Amino acid sequence: MEHGFDVGTLFLAFASALVGAKLFGELAERVGQPAVLGELAVGVILGPSVLGLVPISDAVLELAEIGVVLLLFEVGLETDLAELGRVGAPALAVALAGMLLPFAGGYATARAFGQTPLTATFVGAALTATSIGITARVLSELKVLATREGQIILGAAVVDDVLGLVVLAVVSKVAGGGTLGLATVGKSTGLAIGFLVAAIVLGIPLGRRLIRVVEMARVRGVLGAMSFAFALLIAWLAKAAESAPIVGAFAAGAALARTNRRHDIDSAIKPVVDVFAPVFFVYVGAEVDVRLLNPAVAANRPALLLGLLLAAIGFAGKFAAGFCAWGPVRRAFIGAGMVPRGEVGLIFASVGLATSALDEPAFVSVLVAVFLTTFVAPPLLKVLRPRTRGAALDAPA
Amino acid sequence: MEHGFDVGTLFLAFASALVGAKLFGELAERVGQPAVLGELAVGVILGPSVLGLVPISDAVLELAEIGVVLLLFEVGLETDLAELGRVGAPALAVALAGMLLPFAGGYATARAFGQTPLTATFVGAALTATSIGITARVLSELKVLATREGQIILGAAVVDDVLGLVVLAVVSKVAGGGTLGLATVGKSTGLAIGFLVAAIVLGIPLGRRLIRVVEMARVRGVLGAMSFAFALLIAWLAKAAESAPIVGAFAAGAALARTNRRHDIDSAIKPVVDVFAPVFFVYVGAEVDVRLLNPAVAANRPALLLGLLLAAIGFAGKFAAGFCAWGPVRRAFIGAGMVPRGEVGLIFASVGLATSALDEPAFVSVLVAVFLTTFVAPPLLKVLRPRTRGAALDAPA
Repeated sequence: MEHGFDVGTLFLAFASALVGAKLFGELAERVGQPAVLGELAVGVILGPSVLGLVPISDAVLELAEIGVVLLLFEVGLETDLAELGRVGAPALAVALAGMLLPFAGGYATARAFGQTPLTATFVGAALTATSIGITARVLSELKVLATREGQIILGAAVVDDVLGLVVLAVVSKVAGGGTLGLATVGKSTGLAIGFLVAAIVLGIPLGRRLIRVVEMARVRGVLGAMSFAFALLIAWLAKAAESAPIVGAFAAGAALARTNRRHDIDSAIKPVVDVFAPVFFVYVGAEVDVRLLNPAVAANRPALLLGLLLAAIGFAGKFAAGFCAWGPVRRAFIGAGMVPRGEVGLIFASVGLATSALDEPAFVSVLVAVFLTTFVAPPLLKVLRPRTRGAALDAPA
Repeated sequence: MEHGFDVGTLFLAFASALVGAKLFGELAERVGQPAVLGELAVGVILGPSVLGLVPISDAVLELAEIGVVLLLFEVGLETDLAELGRVGAPALAVALAGMLLPFAGGYATARAFGQTPLTATFVGAALTATSIGITARVLSELKVLATREGQIILGAAVVDDVLGLVVLAVVSKVAGGGTLGLATVGKSTGLAIGFLVAAIVLGIPLGRRLIRVVEMARVRGVLGAMSFAFALLIAWLAKAAESAPIVGAFAAGAALARTNRRHDIDSAIKPVVDVFAPVFFVYVGAEVDVRLLNPAVAANRPALLLGLLLAAIGFAGKFAAGFCAWGPVRRAFIGAGMVPRGEVGLIFASVGLATSALDEPAFVSVLVAVFLTTFVAPPLLKVLRPRTRGAALDAPA
């Protein structure tokens, strides 16, 4: 029972994150904004660069990882795969356009600012990300997950996450000085897409069998615990297959949504999501180092300027991608849903820094773009949301 | 987002612990044993000395710590402080006898086996522990938490935990070669008891105020999240006051039990307990190194023999302490409830090893005693449980 971490610090961080998230979430809601915006904002305040109550440590990251896996599992549970399949084609179009436009814009801008082709590649790649966690959370808060717009955004965000991992693998290889064959790209792409398909196709009968076994249990809390274990196992498999754990958790939820216990699982999981998911958003906020963003410090200014430009390009590229969707949908809403980079953008930025593909100023520029797009999306989604909830689904296509 | 821990390993360990706990818990229940026995047993199998799926790592320990804090918070929520106060005197008698008898027996036995006074002191101290987590869990499973016997055991276990920390502080000081004044012991004791009293006395009005604030919230899941944050904050304060986090969590629950939202909080917290508490019991089981317990290895035998003796003495001392209770109660049940050492015994053992007060064989002997008393208690409690549930409360005193 020897501790490498301090259990007191952990409890304080967890409690601060929960209290802060609910307080600022409530404040955001009262001024007409999505609660997640308050959670991100309080993360900045609680994080190491201001109060330091929520450290960027393994112990807190662990809670955040569990939180985001639970969140995507819940989103999966609320997803109708048949409906998602029906919007597959426009979602794919939105996802692809939403990767190509920001990449091209980011690359060209970075080159125009005198960056090397390698750095420019990483800058462009970071702009291709879409934060499925933030997007799904806002859609759920606005109660538009089940609308056609919601399903297109969700589908596009999943595709974006899957392809984003391919992009990350490719640019990491380039940064490492490796040669890049078409075979590597093909294998990476095949693995990522193959995993998602396999997880859903095999997950549905497995999930049904799991439920049949769970029905026989006498001990307390088996349904919730076993469903969550199912999500964790598929998240682990996703990681092992070089895909993202959150994609696995989403697939697990979507598979269990096809069982007759969907609502019971949802009721058992919701209270756990309520306690862990806020830690994820607070953690993302805590990663903002406000000192680097101070324009009064002259040294910060070039990076900030490039960051502002990248944010504008990143915004415009994703927003325009929304207009690649077709059917009776509010395209601007779809575009806005693709805008937040969130944690996925942060992963690109930190891999870029770790491989020296991004130097410190370029890293800060990417962070500025990541955070501006993340913070601007929730209020924008709220303004643009389809008025008649779910009505688009019933409209003739 | 750089990881010092591997998120894949964490998810696999978490999932294995959940599946194993529910499967073996169910098996235990089917053969007429408390589910927690199955969870402890599967921990041995999943732990590093057998399958290695649940490593003894910070990442898993963190989940276990959250699990046990949640569990004690829930037990606190189900505790009636007035009732607990009514059995305060017999509970205190049971706790004190349950510390003195095993300490004296353990010390004398270790000395008879040729151990130094310092080692014998640590051996005796380790036997004074009572695992409030395991005891409370079994009482809850047997639905006897609300009986007079249940309340006496719970009260005595809380006192034992509080005084156990004083004992640990004192023996650690002795092991470190420090001189021990009455002032130090007094300060340690005062701090530990003072914290518990203060947490409950101040916790009740604070809890009521918290509930009033929470009532005004509009965002989702505020009651569960804020109550849990309250438990974490008091657990953190407990740690800061050199008391045990679980004592703080228990006090937080007992304080919130006095609000009018007791049942709503319980409903919001139960699903989270179901997912995290099993990890704690699996973790305790995983700490058993089966290789040290193999009697076929001649070198293990002296330590095993001493361990068996210590287990017998530890058992007899706690069991006898139950007979110090008075009133219309089943004293044997109370004695059995005090028997499991669990995680508290492990803490003593590992501090003893770390300070060199215990050498490796003496450490193994203590572990044997800790585990035998831990594994024997749940089935014994089941056999001895009061037949008429809750009836003892209504009987004339």
